[in-house]
Amino acid sequence: MTRYQIIIEYDGGGFVGWQRQDNGPSIQAALEEAVYGFCGETVLVEGAGRTDAGVHALAQSAHFDLAKDTTADTVMAAVNFHLKPAPVVVVAARAVPNDFHARFSAIRRAYLYRIVNRRAAPALDAGRAWFVPQPLDAAVMHQAAQVLVGQHDFTSFRASECQAKSPVKTLDRLTVEAFDRGPSGTLIEIRAEAPSFLHHQIRNFAGSLKLVGEGKWTADDLQAALEARDRRAAGPTAAAAGLYLTEVGYPDEAFSQVPEGR
Amino acid sequence: MTRYQIIIEYDGGGFVGWQRQDNGPSIQAALEEAVYGFCGETVLVEGAGRTDAGVHALAQSAHFDLAKDTTADTVMAAVNFHLKPAPVVVVAARAVPNDFHARFSAIRRAYLYRIVNRRAAPALDAGRAWFVPQPLDAAVMHQAAQVLVGQHDFTSFRASECQAKSPVKTLDRLTVEAFDRGPSGTLIEIRAEAPSFLHHQIRNFAGSLKLVGEGKWTADDLQAALEARDRRAAGPTAAAAGLYLTEVGYPDEAFSQVPEGR
Repeated sequence: MTRYQIIIEYDGGGFVGWQRQDNGPSIQAALEEAVYGFCGETVLVEGAGRTDAGVHALAQSAHFDLAKDTTADTVMAAVNFHLKPAPVVVVAARAVPNDFHARFSAIRRAYLYRIVNRRAAPALDAGRAWFVPQPLDAAVMHQAAQVLVGQHDFTSFRASECQAKSPVKTLDRLTVEAFDRGPSGTLIEIRAEAPSFLHHQIRNFAGSLKLVGEGKWTADDLQAALEARDRRAAGPTAAAAGLYLTEVGYPDEAFSQVPEGR
Repeated sequence: MTRYQIIIEYDGGGFVGWQRQDNGPSIQAALEEAVYGFCGETVLVEGAGRTDAGVHALAQSAHFDLAKDTTADTVMAAVNFHLKPAPVVVVAARAVPNDFHARFSAIRRAYLYRIVNRRAAPALDAGRAWFVPQPLDAAVMHQAAQVLVGQHDFTSFRASECQAKSPVKTLDRLTVEAFDRGPSGTLIEIRAEAPSFLHHQIRNFAGSLKLVGEGKWTADDLQAALEARDRRAAGPTAAAAGLYLTEVGYPDEAFSQVPEGR
């Protein structure tokens, strides 16, 4: 058996989410079926982040084990061949030690949340961003966001169905930046980094930061929402279409002892 | 009658192109039908650039005349309402003098051509970029591209069906820049600006610059292709999906004498 790590890009729009479910197509199932198509092996593809329906990935990370004697380059090309025409593609593959685990070895996750902030709904970014027509002040949003950075009980930003053992997480980065795109209006990018996140945490951050950006909330209101430790105290959950998993980080040791010749 | 200029964003993927045709949906027809839905007037929507099937726009410019007494804000909101669910949206509208013409008043066009340069086909950029798996040297492409800047007979980069009176055009800018997107690979952006372009000119530039980028052509080969004044001497036409109309420029005088109160 050889374990392979793959990095995957996908448009989550047509999927019920990363995780295999009975009610529709999942990215996990698409990958498992593509691996089966390639080599006839029924594998479990374990992902680092279980993205929700409509959430995208630039660089999801996953692993699976193959009995077949092959190479990482062949795995990537063959799985991509069998994934077509799904909007899911393996952008990198490598053989890793058998104790590497895409989810449990990960020490860092990074996400991007995109907001199209202009009067007209997006055409090219339809399904790829949250559309907010009210003018948002990104500098004020960024300033307020800093009250969330650090170790906190994030119960106020946690979905009721969240399965994490503890609501206490350490947020390493939460930045808000505006990009002027001329006649195309303003694109606002929220970037978040942490060892791990609660379910809906970033979308709930985005929903509350939007209230700050349009002047309905101050940084103090955001602080009070955090301290309330009550989901009802924070803003609404922002649209799934705006969220992208951009990076999963591992310690160097996770990749040591790579099998030779793979 | 009041003349309105509109700026339009669209995903050209599902269209036969800007121009109304018998063989499928056009962006022009979608806009004319939306105007009719709004006010019952049958108008001609004149565009600045007749983009081909599959070509996108961030900021196409067009104009039309309305007898209805209304405002630019209402025109924008109502046309967008009637455009749904087509991936076409008016991002700006304003009343302009009756001698403003979206196409004939324009003095400058700018385009972006996007290449996804990596081993795996794009998932999120499917239909939004040209996929080139061979590694391209963007710095060498940029250097070579400068031989095309200036006033030249561009017959070698002109589609056979081009209706321009002369193949002589003045190219003001042709730049090639690479953006490293980590595991997502390299994005190459070609930007071109000129008072006007020949049919397929930028896609033919991109097809030839790709030959330079992969080392099959030198800058001298590109120069020789230009000087041959023969379409067969230049590279193939690059994919429509990579091309975006990004800006149409007008002299300030084109907007003077705006009707009051619009």
